[in-house]
Amino acid sequence: MNQALTRPDLSDYYTGQARHLIAIDCIIFGFDEGELKLLAIRRQIEPNRGNWSLIGGFINENESLSDATGRIIRNLTGLEHIYVSQLYAHGEVNRDPVARVLSVSYYALIKCQAYNQQLIDAAGARWFSISDLPQLIFDHPEMVAMALAELRKEVRVKPIGFELLPPKFTLPQLQCVYEAIYQKTLDKRNFRKNILQMDLLERLDEKDKTNSRKGAWFYRFNTDRYKQLSSNGFYFYVSV
Amino acid sequence: MNQALTRPDLSDYYTGQARHLIAIDCIIFGFDEGELKLLAIRRQIEPNRGNWSLIGGFINENESLSDATGRIIRNLTGLEHIYVSQLYAHGEVNRDPVARVLSVSYYALIKCQAYNQQLIDAAGARWFSISDLPQLIFDHPEMVAMALAELRKEVRVKPIGFELLPPKFTLPQLQCVYEAIYQKTLDKRNFRKNILQMDLLERLDEKDKTNSRKGAWFYRFNTDRYKQLSSNGFYFYVSV
Repeated sequence: MNQALTRPDLSDYYTGQARHLIAIDCIIFGFDEGELKLLAIRRQIEPNRGNWSLIGGFINENESLSDATGRIIRNLTGLEHIYVSQLYAHGEVNRDPVARVLSVSYYALIKCQAYNQQLIDAAGARWFSISDLPQLIFDHPEMVAMALAELRKEVRVKPIGFELLPPKFTLPQLQCVYEAIYQKTLDKRNFRKNILQMDLLERLDEKDKTNSRKGAWFYRFNTDRYKQLSSNGFYFYVSV
Repeated sequence: MNQALTRPDLSDYYTGQARHLIAIDCIIFGFDEGELKLLAIRRQIEPNRGNWSLIGGFINENESLSDATGRIIRNLTGLEHIYVSQLYAHGEVNRDPVARVLSVSYYALIKCQAYNQQLIDAAGARWFSISDLPQLIFDHPEMVAMALAELRKEVRVKPIGFELLPPKFTLPQLQCVYEAIYQKTLDKRNFRKNILQMDLLERLDEKDKTNSRKGAWFYRFNTDRYKQLSSNGFYFYVSV
């Protein structure tokens, strides 16, 4: 007997299993005026239309999670090619008052200066200081708290802090990023020593003189060198 | 006009949005005979029935992701109250050959000795050395690789390696856990110094004499002390 004939059609296997709505919510962080900021938007659908919300939307039938995330960020803010990392799948049954909706959150880091005009053009998007957030809908405050905790964890062991800065930056600016993320003051000498001894920054032949006559050297993060060192067992580590 | 009357019923808001099957897959790690091991099971449903698979299942209508994970692990292995951490939401459209199924993966760490009989009793569950895995279905090999990368990252900055050991253990045993996870040899003196100077281990008044006449002191991880130090800005860190 031909075994294939006795097997049901593949598509029959999972019938009877529950199906669920899946949303995506994005915690978009930026660094500006010495502060860590969060991008929020006025919610465009009911319920809670007009309230402050993370950038989000539903995923479609034939769309991967990462494609949906790219589409949602692009459509609501105009942003493309930015650092995005999956944070968590939120699966509490009553997290959305309308229906059972699971949400996968992503956090993104952007260089504010490079994108501010685009974001102002995007309807309703606005930056808030992380220390002065508006009331956000649903479990979005919890998502922001998780993203901030994850950012604090990651920024110590991965060079993602540079995503918040322009391609060329000074050591005081870099320290300021870490201080804004941790909301504490770091010792300048220890920070410089820690960063420079990893040998990942390339000093440029140019100084930023906006804050002092002596000025501060501009540096660039050397991505190739980081990849090379990492493949040889090196671990990035910033002591905070 | 009463605004409430003009608003549609809450449950109408999200109609028209796609609904999706959501599975859970668990990467269960154990440490035994000096090796990091993975628990796999013979898949109990079609397609690929009988093939090696991670422990998994679908989530139900009124069940949170974490409740579903607990249910699935308990039903398939008898394990309860173990260390479980969410790993990733896998959303590629074609990751399951039968239907569009998103999967949320979790990794778990267990003390093998405490549970081996239970696992032998659970139909079809079996330990494989991480360096000699069987062919796993779908994208499960990728999930295992991600879980291992995450474990390597986490075990350096969080005291989760202790989850793989009995409550009392020797420093050589602890070093062996790190060596098994990283699959490399660590310097004994540096490792001891690194671990002991964090002041998180409590030396017991008892020695393990199975490996030498001199013996090795037993230690216990001091959870309260770790919480106390962490709340004061201490960061766990093991250099590998």
